Amino acid sequence: MNKKTVINNLGKILFVEAVFMLIPALVALFYGEYKDALYFSGTILGTILISLLFTRVKGSSLNPRDGYVIVTSAWITISLIGAIPLYLTGCFPSYISALFEIISGFTTTGASVMPEPGVLGHGMQFFRCFSHWIGGMGVLVFVLMLLPMENDSSMHLIRAEVPGPTAGKLVPRMKNTSRILYGIYTVMTLTLVVILKILGMPWYDAFCYSFGTAGTGGFGICADGLAIYNSHAIEIAIGIGMLCFGVNFNIYYMILLGKVKDALKNEELRVYFGIILFAVVTVCANTMRVIGSFSDALRLSFFQVSSIMTTTGFSTADFASWPQYSQHLLALLMIIGACAGSTAGGFKVSRVIILWKSFISEIKRAINPKQMMPIRVNGSVVENKALQSAKVYCAVYFIIICLSVLLLSVNGYSFTTNVTAVLACFNNIGPGLDMVGPTLNYSIYSMPAQLLLSLLMLTGRLEIFPIFCLFAKSAHDRL
Amino acid sequence: MNKKTVINNLGKILFVEAVFMLIPALVALFYGEYKDALYFSGTILGTILISLLFTRVKGSSLNPRDGYVIVTSAWITISLIGAIPLYLTGCFPSYISALFEIISGFTTTGASVMPEPGVLGHGMQFFRCFSHWIGGMGVLVFVLMLLPMENDSSMHLIRAEVPGPTAGKLVPRMKNTSRILYGIYTVMTLTLVVILKILGMPWYDAFCYSFGTAGTGGFGICADGLAIYNSHAIEIAIGIGMLCFGVNFNIYYMILLGKVKDALKNEELRVYFGIILFAVVTVCANTMRVIGSFSDALRLSFFQVSSIMTTTGFSTADFASWPQYSQHLLALLMIIGACAGSTAGGFKVSRVIILWKSFISEIKRAINPKQMMPIRVNGSVVENKALQSAKVYCAVYFIIICLSVLLLSVNGYSFTTNVTAVLACFNNIGPGLDMVGPTLNYSIYSMPAQLLLSLLMLTGRLEIFPIFCLFAKSAHDRL
Repeated sequence: MNKKTVINNLGKILFVEAVFMLIPALVALFYGEYKDALYFSGTILGTILISLLFTRVKGSSLNPRDGYVIVTSAWITISLIGAIPLYLTGCFPSYISALFEIISGFTTTGASVMPEPGVLGHGMQFFRCFSHWIGGMGVLVFVLMLLPMENDSSMHLIRAEVPGPTAGKLVPRMKNTSRILYGIYTVMTLTLVVILKILGMPWYDAFCYSFGTAGTGGFGICADGLAIYNSHAIEIAIGIGMLCFGVNFNIYYMILLGKVKDALKNEELRVYFGIILFAVVTVCANTMRVIGSFSDALRLSFFQVSSIMTTTGFSTADFASWPQYSQHLLALLMIIGACAGSTAGGFKVSRVIILWKSFISEIKRAINPKQMMPIRVNGSVVENKALQSAKVYCAVYFIIICLSVLLLSVNGYSFTTNVTAVLACFNNIGPGLDMVGPTLNYSIYSMPAQLLLSLLMLTGRLEIFPIFCLFAKSAHDRL
Repeated sequence: MNKKTVINNLGKILFVEAVFMLIPALVALFYGEYKDALYFSGTILGTILISLLFTRVKGSSLNPRDGYVIVTSAWITISLIGAIPLYLTGCFPSYISALFEIISGFTTTGASVMPEPGVLGHGMQFFRCFSHWIGGMGVLVFVLMLLPMENDSSMHLIRAEVPGPTAGKLVPRMKNTSRILYGIYTVMTLTLVVILKILGMPWYDAFCYSFGTAGTGGFGICADGLAIYNSHAIEIAIGIGMLCFGVNFNIYYMILLGKVKDALKNEELRVYFGIILFAVVTVCANTMRVIGSFSDALRLSFFQVSSIMTTTGFSTADFASWPQYSQHLLALLMIIGACAGSTAGGFKVSRVIILWKSFISEIKRAINPKQMMPIRVNGSVVENKALQSAKVYCAVYFIIICLSVLLLSVNGYSFTTNVTAVLACFNNIGPGLDMVGPTLNYSIYSMPAQLLLSLLMLTGRLEIFPIFCLFAKSAHDRL
């Protein structure tokens, strides 16, 4: 491992974080929250100082392992720093809770330990929601857009940060790829802001909710969430918005290039919308008796399915009180998640497709051992390496969930609570069922449990491997 | 597919089933239960007639797919026939419930729809427990022992029936392998019968409980189970017995050959006992306050861990009322199961080892893409094919559990109930948590749900692939 390179890159990333934090600081100033502005300024100054120290260390080019180490340590560092202003407000019982909250923000989980986020000032709330937006597309993708870096090196970073089994370049130069990604992302977010404003939200709220929707995060700005606007149009707009941000961004790029037909033929996209259609129809049928009217059931089902499937985690209904089928289906959607290459978390639709096809191919081979069937997604053969990764990913995913549930059980809550808490954090969703249901929060868990859940959020966001690579140092050095 | 061969082999298997059923019929006669004896005789006669018809069809040698088809259709047929005498007693609300009960028997699950099995006569109870013993080592392994068959053909059958990722021959001739397996199995079972008799059980009870222990099944002969003997010695004997039947039978063969040292070095064996030790110690510590005394806690924990890990499912305590950690750990052990090549169900310790090592190797490759690291278990490299199968198995295992839980949720019971019901049936354990806890039974589920759970038991016992191969006909014919 090239320690100097890692430190140098960390320095750059910290500088970008300091610049990011200027925005909520200005918001705090604008609303006359001088204390909060001071907390931000202090943190920004400290961050810039560390950044200057770090960037003075000169590094060389990256190898794959350095990429993983940089990504993981960057996410941990920005979280550790981001938790400082939140903690200083005194609204959190401990630094660990503040850390949980900001990791939940950056990883776009949206799980909160706050019963009422409204106690925070405007600036702090803005920071909390803005962290979703930054974390959604990736802090490093943003850094790559700004800073000069070798093409190979940046590829290693993007691979480690962008969700999904296949991170591809859109254009030969990585820098341009990240500009295109952030460009699409920004335009879509601003469109949503304008729509929400037109539908009656104040500008401030429109920005906060757009960040949460775009990053598929799910933080609200008050305990009652979207209910305070009392507007079906806003609900539907955000429901559709979440769906759109759960789509692979390559699809939008293809549409921009005029390849609409190819884009719509995308296998993952079709399965994604197929699952959503199935879920909305059956949940609607299942909840109609409880909710009362068909139109309400359809609207609430659509919103909730879209929110859970895209791992956003907004809720406009207490789905923990819905019939069992709906609760079970939502728990299943939590696992699947949305498309690869989107801002959403979870297992990703494309991995489910790959695994399903592997299974079919395995059965065919059991029947006829001599036959070799390559696995195709979107008409092209899936590389053996990607296939292997998806399979191992599934196994490790399963092992991590089991062990985490076991560790959480020491806190003594129910099986449903622990399983859905782990699923909701690991897949970056937010609310679970039972004691961590949509009307409740994660403050019930002890500090060690909150730390474990924070680690799960990071592991889920970075898709397991980078986190473990950080800890695999000794194993590597032994080789 | 060679239909004639399949039918011919089914005929042979049915004949063996008829002979098997003679034993409970004689038990029924011995206890003067003439009605039950009549039900058995009628079923036996019918089975022999069908068997004669089937064996008149002459077949040729087998290909791998035929092996899968024979195994799957054999298990389904013997269950359909075995359910008849049970249904005729009138103790079951429908034929489907009787089918659930006998599939639970043959697959060594031990899940029951009967609140009080004591309402059945001695002959019927014996049949129910005996089905565990037959199903444990495999009906087809038994058939292979008796009937002449090509070496290659029988290998295909054994591969499909014996649990675990690697079914090996012990000796070059398959017929001798199955004789050795059944020989060890019978001697161990009879030893347990004698021990239980010495410890104070009546002969009849000793046989029934030995069958349940040997097959890692778990049917009891009255609702109070082992509690009626009020003997700690019996409890400990059965606890140790279950552990022994959860060990790969190849280990016993190695010990018989004098290779004790090699046997004890077996990696799976070590991990298996390691997990049990860890579980017993932590569950004991966790339950001590609830149970009261250290010695009781140790005994009950040992028995329960052994029972769940080996997927037997006997219970001497209502673990659904234990603290959450213990409940969660038991649910985790349900998934893992015992060793490959034993009579136990579940995911198998060796698969967990293989997957864990794949994960480590994947991380190493992420760090250093050029490095190729073969995966070794017990010092020898795991074949790529076995590796692939284990990975795909894990993925499909996960998918099946998720979908089954979703389907069961239509019945409206809690998340914990449905998840543990699926785990307990799919892994052939028996009791779950909440509404299917150790003091309750599966009669709460509707008939379609009972059918689904029956199918899960079969799929779990035959380890997924054979069942799907049966339904993969059209896909195959399309090729």
